Amino acid sequence: MAVGQCDFPNMLNVKGITLGTACAGIKQTIKDDILVIQMTEDSTCAAVFTQNAFCAAPVHIAKAHLAHQPRWLLINSGNANAGTGEQGMQNARYSCAELAKVTGGHAQQILPFSTGVIGQPLPVAKLTAALPLAIKNLQIDHWELAARAIMTTDTFPKGVSKTISIDGQTITINGISKGAGMIQPNMATMLGFIATDAKIEQILLQQCLSVAVEQSFNRITVDGDTSTNDACVVMASGCSSAPEITADSEHYAIFAAGLMDVCKQLAEAIVRDGEGATKLIRIVVEEALNDEEAVRVGKTIAHSPLVKTAFFASDPNWGRILAAVGRSGIEDMVLENVQLFLNEVCIVRSGGRALDYTEEAGQQVMNEEEITVTVKLGRGNAIQEVLTCDLSYDYVKINAEYRT
Amino acid sequence: MAVGQCDFPNMLNVKGITLGTACAGIKQTIKDDILVIQMTEDSTCAAVFTQNAFCAAPVHIAKAHLAHQPRWLLINSGNANAGTGEQGMQNARYSCAELAKVTGGHAQQILPFSTGVIGQPLPVAKLTAALPLAIKNLQIDHWELAARAIMTTDTFPKGVSKTISIDGQTITINGISKGAGMIQPNMATMLGFIATDAKIEQILLQQCLSVAVEQSFNRITVDGDTSTNDACVVMASGCSSAPEITADSEHYAIFAAGLMDVCKQLAEAIVRDGEGATKLIRIVVEEALNDEEAVRVGKTIAHSPLVKTAFFASDPNWGRILAAVGRSGIEDMVLENVQLFLNEVCIVRSGGRALDYTEEAGQQVMNEEEITVTVKLGRGNAIQEVLTCDLSYDYVKINAEYRT
Repeated sequence: MAVGQCDFPNMLNVKGITLGTACAGIKQTIKDDILVIQMTEDSTCAAVFTQNAFCAAPVHIAKAHLAHQPRWLLINSGNANAGTGEQGMQNARYSCAELAKVTGGHAQQILPFSTGVIGQPLPVAKLTAALPLAIKNLQIDHWELAARAIMTTDTFPKGVSKTISIDGQTITINGISKGAGMIQPNMATMLGFIATDAKIEQILLQQCLSVAVEQSFNRITVDGDTSTNDACVVMASGCSSAPEITADSEHYAIFAAGLMDVCKQLAEAIVRDGEGATKLIRIVVEEALNDEEAVRVGKTIAHSPLVKTAFFASDPNWGRILAAVGRSGIEDMVLENVQLFLNEVCIVRSGGRALDYTEEAGQQVMNEEEITVTVKLGRGNAIQEVLTCDLSYDYVKINAEYRT
Repeated sequence: MAVGQCDFPNMLNVKGITLGTACAGIKQTIKDDILVIQMTEDSTCAAVFTQNAFCAAPVHIAKAHLAHQPRWLLINSGNANAGTGEQGMQNARYSCAELAKVTGGHAQQILPFSTGVIGQPLPVAKLTAALPLAIKNLQIDHWELAARAIMTTDTFPKGVSKTISIDGQTITINGISKGAGMIQPNMATMLGFIATDAKIEQILLQQCLSVAVEQSFNRITVDGDTSTNDACVVMASGCSSAPEITADSEHYAIFAAGLMDVCKQLAEAIVRDGEGATKLIRIVVEEALNDEEAVRVGKTIAHSPLVKTAFFASDPNWGRILAAVGRSGIEDMVLENVQLFLNEVCIVRSGGRALDYTEEAGQQVMNEEEITVTVKLGRGNAIQEVLTCDLSYDYVKINAEYRT
């Protein structure tokens, strides 16, 4: 049950990037569960990985291989290869070595990613047996197949495709993502793969991606958990006829904004598909002393089970939101200066309920499927946004019954 | 639906302390909703208040009055007097002034406390009209009536009564608490009132209480929210024939341990009554570098909705627990050194599932009503414990439907 329209878009081709899928039989249903993405030889590649101290085996390997000019991504769904100890590391390395045999490249040029059940051995024989077919299937227009192959409990495939213009030349940026919670039920979780035909040095690409992820994937929360397998990768093939993106150019800003937009759309799609979600909630914190404080307040609201159940019930229960602001750990916050809005409706002003607030006005906003909560702290000029969804019976159901 | 046996205990009398209740009609049902606790003249009194920056009007007043040798506590349930702005402050002050008239004391000698719905004006006329009856009802043995009068969505009254012995003389320590979540559905929440006939200076009493609360009420979580009204008070009448508790005496340690025990039992009762709780989960973090780190890991596990739904489903889903440990923000944690136990059953060792672990053994533990999760970090000698409950359909139901 996703929030809003979630049709898969028409994806443009990204020159220099091809995608091939196959069914290895790792998932319990007969669906593609292997994806290989191939880049042209001179591509650059940047990535951001989970902050979880216990990251999965493929994350360790992918981090190490990133320095060796990757040319292939190898992704499997259905098994996270996490909590699998030394055997998990061996399996991830072996998968890369086998793909290298099929492609004729080096194992170090391959970044592995896994998503699925934690703590089960990766069925590596099944995985590697399917690699020749995935390579055979490599095509420039296989984006939707790719988006479907990386799904686990997602209810829809997630994709974004856009172009930007630099000196009259077109650059395409495509992205796919998967995830329906920051951690799935026993699954491990958020993955994003972005490809562009821009020409850009690795160090600049990494810089753009880090900023974009911070403002997108790191601003969403379904249940506050951080998975052991989260990763976001961007590949730049350099095949566009647009000039190279360099550090000092105004092109840099245009490209960075384009990448940010793709990341934000991919991240929002994950919240729309949040486990059990019936509402998309945009929390905007304004008048904060600095960005860090704004994010902190936003996330405290977004993580509150009480706030989230109130949204599920369409209950304009502003006391819960105010209490969340109050416990967010900001020093010297003055209640009297805080204002709280549901969409355009002011609920709290001067330390209590706004005099002109009516329950009817609050209720009308709450009945909507997408709601913006604005908190004005009255302390400064920083603004930040956090996205979340409500907490429903279905969240408990999905997460309680996953393995039964 | 509380976890385990929750009968109200036989309460001893505490010399010098009397309790009187009355029905002011603040609650929607016709039940006592006012409690006055009176102390003898030479009593000392200490208190700990919520860390929420937006604390309720009565919390502000109680904090200020604590310095004026309090002789009465005035508690109402049904209305939190929180998010009520300047009018809320006036109402809290007025309530104290009216009680002072009835008792012949000073308004500053009264500590007010409120618990109930947030953001509604306190019906102060109803409250003050009931004060004479509450005073008339003051009795030394009204502990159960008192425990019932402060309930909101609690499903059972919570009390503890114990004695300690100092130089062959008996000291009694009684306590009552209310709360069924760190924040109730739109309610504001945890209150604890403890009385003893020990003789002890205020500054020492405050010291004992602060330590006890840190190890008890601050070690429980139902949904991670911190209420605007939380408070815990201890009153010492000095009426026991035991010698005064002084700083350097071994008596101090005995008294501090007794107070700690009462606080822990009162805190545990709140978790047992956690909204929708079907299981009591004790999270013990061992081999931590220090206490702070142990608490941090324990609370990260205790706050994870994924862990809590797994317990509700009786699913030995250790990947979720391990992922919570990994994201708790401890630097340089080594997965290979971490061990995870469900009761006595070792689940994780050497970075992966323990070789001798069987799903059957894990399942057997999970089917129990009270479960201990032990995490050994392999980093040091610190041990800390956190208590929580599971996350069930009923949690969502209670919190989503509260105002409908």
